[in-house]
Amino acid sequence: MGKKMAEEKLTPRNENYSEWYNQVVLKADLADYAPVRGCMVVKPYGWAIWENMQKELDRRFKETGHVNAAFPMLIPKSFFEKEKEHVEGFAPELAVVTVGGGQVLDEPLVIRPTSETVIGYMYSKWIKSYRDLPVLINQWANVVRWEMRTRLFLRTLEFYWQEGHTAHSSAEEAQEETIRMLNVYADFAINEAAVPVIRGVKSETEKFAGAVNTYSIEAMMGDTKALQAGTSHNLGQNFAKAFDIKYLDQNNTQQYCWTTSWGLSTRFIGAIIMTHGDDNGLILPPRLAPYQIVIVPIYKNDAERSSVMEAVEKVQKQLIQFRVKLDDRTEVTPGFKFNEWELRGVPLRLEIGPKDVEKGSVMAARRDIPGKAGKSILLQENLAPQVQAMLDTIQASMLQRATDFRDANIHNANTYDELKEIIQNGWAESWWCGSADCEAKIKEETKATTRCMPFDQPKTEKGKCVYCGAEAVKKIYFSKAY
Amino acid sequence: MGKKMAEEKLTPRNENYSEWYNQVVLKADLADYAPVRGCMVVKPYGWAIWENMQKELDRRFKETGHVNAAFPMLIPKSFFEKEKEHVEGFAPELAVVTVGGGQVLDEPLVIRPTSETVIGYMYSKWIKSYRDLPVLINQWANVVRWEMRTRLFLRTLEFYWQEGHTAHSSAEEAQEETIRMLNVYADFAINEAAVPVIRGVKSETEKFAGAVNTYSIEAMMGDTKALQAGTSHNLGQNFAKAFDIKYLDQNNTQQYCWTTSWGLSTRFIGAIIMTHGDDNGLILPPRLAPYQIVIVPIYKNDAERSSVMEAVEKVQKQLIQFRVKLDDRTEVTPGFKFNEWELRGVPLRLEIGPKDVEKGSVMAARRDIPGKAGKSILLQENLAPQVQAMLDTIQASMLQRATDFRDANIHNANTYDELKEIIQNGWAESWWCGSADCEAKIKEETKATTRCMPFDQPKTEKGKCVYCGAEAVKKIYFSKAY
Ligand SMILES: [Zn+2]
Ligand SMILES: [Zn+2]
Repeated sequence: MGKKMAEEKLTPRNENYSEWYNQVVLKADLADYAPVRGCMVVKPYGWAIWENMQKELDRRFKETGHVNAAFPMLIPKSFFEKEKEHVEGFAPELAVVTVGGGQVLDEPLVIRPTSETVIGYMYSKWIKSYRDLPVLINQWANVVRWEMRTRLFLRTLEFYWQEGHTAHSSAEEAQEETIRMLNVYADFAINEAAVPVIRGVKSETEKFAGAVNTYSIEAMMGDTKALQAGTSHNLGQNFAKAFDIKYLDQNNTQQYCWTTSWGLSTRFIGAIIMTHGDDNGLILPPRLAPYQIVIVPIYKNDAERSSVMEAVEKVQKQLIQFRVKLDDRTEVTPGFKFNEWELRGVPLRLEIGPKDVEKGSVMAARRDIPGKAGKSILLQENLAPQVQAMLDTIQASMLQRATDFRDANIHNANTYDELKEIIQNGWAESWWCGSADCEAKIKEETKATTRCMPFDQPKTEKGKCVYCGAEAVKKIYFSKAY
Repeated sequence: MGKKMAEEKLTPRNENYSEWYNQVVLKADLADYAPVRGCMVVKPYGWAIWENMQKELDRRFKETGHVNAAFPMLIPKSFFEKEKEHVEGFAPELAVVTVGGGQVLDEPLVIRPTSETVIGYMYSKWIKSYRDLPVLINQWANVVRWEMRTRLFLRTLEFYWQEGHTAHSSAEEAQEETIRMLNVYADFAINEAAVPVIRGVKSETEKFAGAVNTYSIEAMMGDTKALQAGTSHNLGQNFAKAFDIKYLDQNNTQQYCWTTSWGLSTRFIGAIIMTHGDDNGLILPPRLAPYQIVIVPIYKNDAERSSVMEAVEKVQKQLIQFRVKLDDRTEVTPGFKFNEWELRGVPLRLEIGPKDVEKGSVMAARRDIPGKAGKSILLQENLAPQVQAMLDTIQASMLQRATDFRDANIHNANTYDELKEIIQNGWAESWWCGSADCEAKIKEETKATTRCMPFDQPKTEKGKCVYCGAEAVKKIYFSKAY
């Protein structure tokens, strides 16, 4: 299952970034193409990353008072027509079931592209009084959007995600929830995935179909393109009105709820790959890596083997709190194993050979610093804290490196010419008048889209729109994006 | 959200078992009907049971060497025609996507009813050599089968399950895997869910479409009907040949793999409800209950309230290793809370009132023994081990009670008249000649189906088929079933 793949070199990133990405996904055994166009198989190694992500996200959702549930995948087509903007946004992307049990269905059913509609319908049945609020539900689910141009993890017909759907008794509370969950995503991205995302609000054009406001976390990939890594939507009363989600308030008056929704998907795995990867392959953050450590025994003959394996066993026993892979294959060389586990992004490699047996040492090799510079000698005695410290250092330095890279590639663009130059290889931060027209023209002429208006804005300063020169009060990022 | 429901009494089981079941599911807030016929919404309380089941099953899968992955939901329709028996079994139940992105599709896509076909296709790409074997993959997924008569959890168009799919280099190893996973299911059912299942092999008629042999765990519900609670299939080389899953063996010869599949679904939640529930509602086994303990404070005035809540807080702190719900609502009475949490099946209720504050005590009420007989006084001091012991006792006595009930309702049927009598209220254990004809006649005439031939068979004894009188070497269970 892909064992021979590590032998061939990857296409270097600066030669063809897109090709490099595809090769990493396939050769690191993260995912494969399914028989249906645009669908993917997430292989065990890729799915283990997702499971680690799920654990960390789910913990945060529960700590902020949310519970999980499961809503159905099949939604009556008519539901999509109830919210005007929602239908316009999603109608072109729907997969439609027209036959069930050998019969043509009276009403076609849609496979959920997102679940605001069916959840709105259920909430309208469940919510009666202010005492029922807030409702704070999340679901882990698969969804289908009929995309034309697909890439493994980044854009697939079916993908996996979580979608939170909440209902509140005031606009303020809904807004607080929207920002709370955006912050949960940012905290997860930064502290678990070492992906230094920027929080901000999307433009009207780029917001979710049916939302009042969409907030996003935006990440910079290794080729400086942007990737929207998670979104949190304040839906106002739009879906409450479309689906009749009402409650009796404390004065016995019927009110519409205020709702939110927020999602993060397997797309984020693409963000991890492209934030950290190098020409040797994947580099996984220790906190999410399926294997944090790979142990490679090194020996030349049976006598060496037996003493080395004895040491390996002792080392393994000390490291039970970590996710450890022992690569004891005999049919491939240590060098082959080094390449393979580098390609697959294991953060820390421990080599144990006859000299280590003699000296009570272990050779440690950091994935994030290739070659000799990343090597150091640890002691077998009391190994766990040394390894923990090293994994913490790797996690921190991956975040630092990605942050430095991001900051080095965001530039102020004061003129449209500057903007055009900057977005060739980075993000342009510019004053923008807020007009969808300027945004559309820039997109048409440069292929750069607006990413978000960061929370961190100049306090009093104003400026001129980078495109039309009109007065502007907000800065926004322009860049090419996935 | 259902808070008022506990006020109305349930229909007693002996009056209308089916109605009792539906009421429990809805009133205990486990699930609700979705807008699409036959689909369900699993509500947070129901989903929490499933999450606890997932944790226990997933742990066992990983301990037996399996890894998780995710295969696509959409499968080309033609895949179902590759295995002759499989297509016959599943063709009538398929949901078919014919439109995607506004276009009629060249080839219709089926929403997976089970994934042998698409996984077989992928395995044929991945498996090259004996070194790649065994492949031991599981997935947690939703599937759709177009059922005509549906019941929440028991039979729904969309349901949730896990499906394991393994490939091996010998028939023996595949058979071992099939039995290993059946035993995992039995161990889970008995020791986590307190559902005393019987392991056995299905008849040819009742086996999975495309399998060589299907093994099942069969459970007896509170109305003595059977419920197939999990299945493990030895697929032989049927799917390997249909999907060309081949490997080079150690002699460099191409061989077809031997494959297995095994699944357990949200249907099992129905088995828990109907194995343990009583006329007051759900009784959940402590090891899977979302809340193992509910604490109900009892007070008449503010002064009492403050001392009671102080004691409650101390008790809560002692019980952090358990899943505890503190019901501190002020708008409903303690009596209302007792009924509600009984209905919702929380295994242990702890009441703390002014007298308990005085005496340093806690009143414990076991859900499995209603009324005074289930009440006892615990000490606040060193509470955790007392509670643990009580939960263990509840778990064990739920299993014992269900086992006794099952054994009391299985009877030997030596004649067809006896069989007809027994299956009115129990399972008949009978000699059966193995003919599908006899099986079909019995089903037609009595509505009883064969459940399984239990592993535990008479060693040398032989008998006469309960229907045709021909010589028989196997005993089998006949019963009405869900
Ligand atoms: Zn402008
Ligand atoms: Zn017979």
